[in-house]
Amino acid sequence: MRNFNFKNGTEIIFGKDSESQVGTLIKKYTNKILLHYGGGSIKKTGLYDKVIKSLKDSNIEFVELSGVKPNPRVSLVREGIKICRDNNIDFILAVGGGSVIDSSKAIAAGVNYNGDVWDLFIDTPINHKCIQLATILTIPAAGSETSSGCVITNEDGLYKRSTGHPTLRPVFSIMNPELTYTLPKYQTSCGIADMFAHILERYFTNEPNVDLTDRLCEGTMKAIIDNALRLNINPNDYNARAEIMLSGMVAHNGSLDMGRLGDWASHDIEHELSGVYDIAHGAGLAIIFPAWMKFVYKHDINRFAQFANRVFDIDINLNNLEETALKGIKALEDFFTAIELPTRLSHVDIDDSNLEEMSNKLVAHTDHVGNFVQIRAKEALEILKLAL
Amino acid sequence: MRNFNFKNGTEIIFGKDSESQVGTLIKKYTNKILLHYGGGSIKKTGLYDKVIKSLKDSNIEFVELSGVKPNPRVSLVREGIKICRDNNIDFILAVGGGSVIDSSKAIAAGVNYNGDVWDLFIDTPINHKCIQLATILTIPAAGSETSSGCVITNEDGLYKRSTGHPTLRPVFSIMNPELTYTLPKYQTSCGIADMFAHILERYFTNEPNVDLTDRLCEGTMKAIIDNALRLNINPNDYNARAEIMLSGMVAHNGSLDMGRLGDWASHDIEHELSGVYDIAHGAGLAIIFPAWMKFVYKHDINRFAQFANRVFDIDINLNNLEETALKGIKALEDFFTAIELPTRLSHVDIDDSNLEEMSNKLVAHTDHVGNFVQIRAKEALEILKLAL
Repeated sequence: MRNFNFKNGTEIIFGKDSESQVGTLIKKYTNKILLHYGGGSIKKTGLYDKVIKSLKDSNIEFVELSGVKPNPRVSLVREGIKICRDNNIDFILAVGGGSVIDSSKAIAAGVNYNGDVWDLFIDTPINHKCIQLATILTIPAAGSETSSGCVITNEDGLYKRSTGHPTLRPVFSIMNPELTYTLPKYQTSCGIADMFAHILERYFTNEPNVDLTDRLCEGTMKAIIDNALRLNINPNDYNARAEIMLSGMVAHNGSLDMGRLGDWASHDIEHELSGVYDIAHGAGLAIIFPAWMKFVYKHDINRFAQFANRVFDIDINLNNLEETALKGIKALEDFFTAIELPTRLSHVDIDDSNLEEMSNKLVAHTDHVGNFVQIRAKEALEILKLAL
Repeated sequence: MRNFNFKNGTEIIFGKDSESQVGTLIKKYTNKILLHYGGGSIKKTGLYDKVIKSLKDSNIEFVELSGVKPNPRVSLVREGIKICRDNNIDFILAVGGGSVIDSSKAIAAGVNYNGDVWDLFIDTPINHKCIQLATILTIPAAGSETSSGCVITNEDGLYKRSTGHPTLRPVFSIMNPELTYTLPKYQTSCGIADMFAHILERYFTNEPNVDLTDRLCEGTMKAIIDNALRLNINPNDYNARAEIMLSGMVAHNGSLDMGRLGDWASHDIEHELSGVYDIAHGAGLAIIFPAWMKFVYKHDINRFAQFANRVFDIDINLNNLEETALKGIKALEDFFTAIELPTRLSHVDIDDSNLEEMSNKLVAHTDHVGNFVQIRAKEALEILKLAL
């Protein structure tokens, strides 16, 4: 186990009707906020009206900025920063999924920065005061509701880059599983692949002696599998929705990182994929992760056999650990298939025409990605070919 | 899953030599502290000197209060409160195990309370400002290093009572597994029983649909079992010490409570036991918990069979779940025996002469204890008899 520091002070308010507390909760911090959200969905579901009522009941003044799209854009972030500065706002309420929350975090980071906010995603560390934010989560997936990081896309060149700072963790996040009933099946499954991948990135580490966090990762993956399959049958199963929502938070709140170093190559490769093609991040991960696993499993066959055994209950064949490892990878693919996700590029009509371009772009500004196994352009190309 | 709120903002600084950062860390909060500890052990091990050096290097002024004993006394708490008031101190550094940390929390709660601090353990809720505290943990057991609660003994009548408040969570806790090398084997095992019991109290709930937290509980118990057995062979196994220290924190940081209601009858019964007899809390729990389990398992035999299967890898006999459940309880006893703990009152030379007195005292100020199964004096007596 490595030495580590860990702190996550986000307050979680979890359960039915929890969004009605939002006004009261914000009142502890401020009287004036930026209300940031996507588009019509929160209006259609009635969530928007509930939030406005709660804000008004608590006499919270608010300025609205809607229009966040999947892969949130830096142009809208700049707009949000200007609104906060012009209106002396120092608190953002994000109502939505990971994109809305990440857009809010970027605004929070940019308000007190004397320069263009995109700098903070390139080469300028955050060492100024970020303004506070809180969330009402509507899509369990990214885990941004308690994490310290965010990912933003610069539409000028389609660069997707991340930044983070401990003070970007939301002060509170409201999580009502009922708010996720209206998610289409495909989006629910994409979110599940995203949270599952967040655990896999942490699970495949070279750090020895990480028993407890291994067990916590494995337990969270098992809970996700069971409840994802239930949801695929009945999308209105409250208990399954609740387990998935809670799992998405645990997957990315930092507790599964304690004492270990994660990999993250698959996320980096997927960012190139969804940078070029119009594909959901979760779907991209369901394609890239099994391919990455097939490429790297020989690096630590014991860990892959443990994964197969403890997550998918596959017996360990001590005389042929490779067989066990490959059965585990197959079981993961079968799980993604069972929740109706693609597991090959061909499933989403992507051919081999841009594989080299994506592989080169991946390491355009870095020597390699990944920690479990270092991945450069050559290896990324192999992984993408395995995903065809 | 129940609706819940959860927040735990304690910063964890974990790993080798982490205690040398204490001065720098405190400097972010204050320049003057109460340094609170037990007795000679931290002086013998050299930890005291390291702490003093770090404080002096950061120009932190400190007033010392030593003398905390196991089952920390309210008289010393009163002394600490007076020192803080007389010296305008609003920050406490606890160096030690759960008793030192709990004593510090009681002082932190009492400084700004206009009355006797024992009130806060009887009938006065904390609704005033507590002063801040931080810890350097030397005994993995109580989980007080990130929890919001504390237990104090009033030597006038030997009452052991608890209180808690979110602001009593330490602002940071330093956890260096090397600091636990010098713990005697028995004390190490008692700590392990304590943290294991913290998970059991949460595991046995009547709340249905708590898949994720079930899995997190089970995984943490499995990690504890594996590493406790390693430590019993080699007390200087850093990796096993680290896993145990981290598990003790996870067991009681509140994350395993998310969405469920724990039981806590065994803890309450044990408090009566160690109130009357000079027995370590962890040893008392190793005796009381199996007895409680034998008394209540029929209340939810499925949950006990799941415990046997998932924690101790016992095959489920679907034609005889009772057999599976009882095998799980036996496996727990065997685990405690393997780490050289008592599992019967007779093992610590306690006979049946005070069982009724303890049973009656347990519910002297409450209708019942326990949530999984309600326990009154009659049932407590049965449990204590099963423990003979």
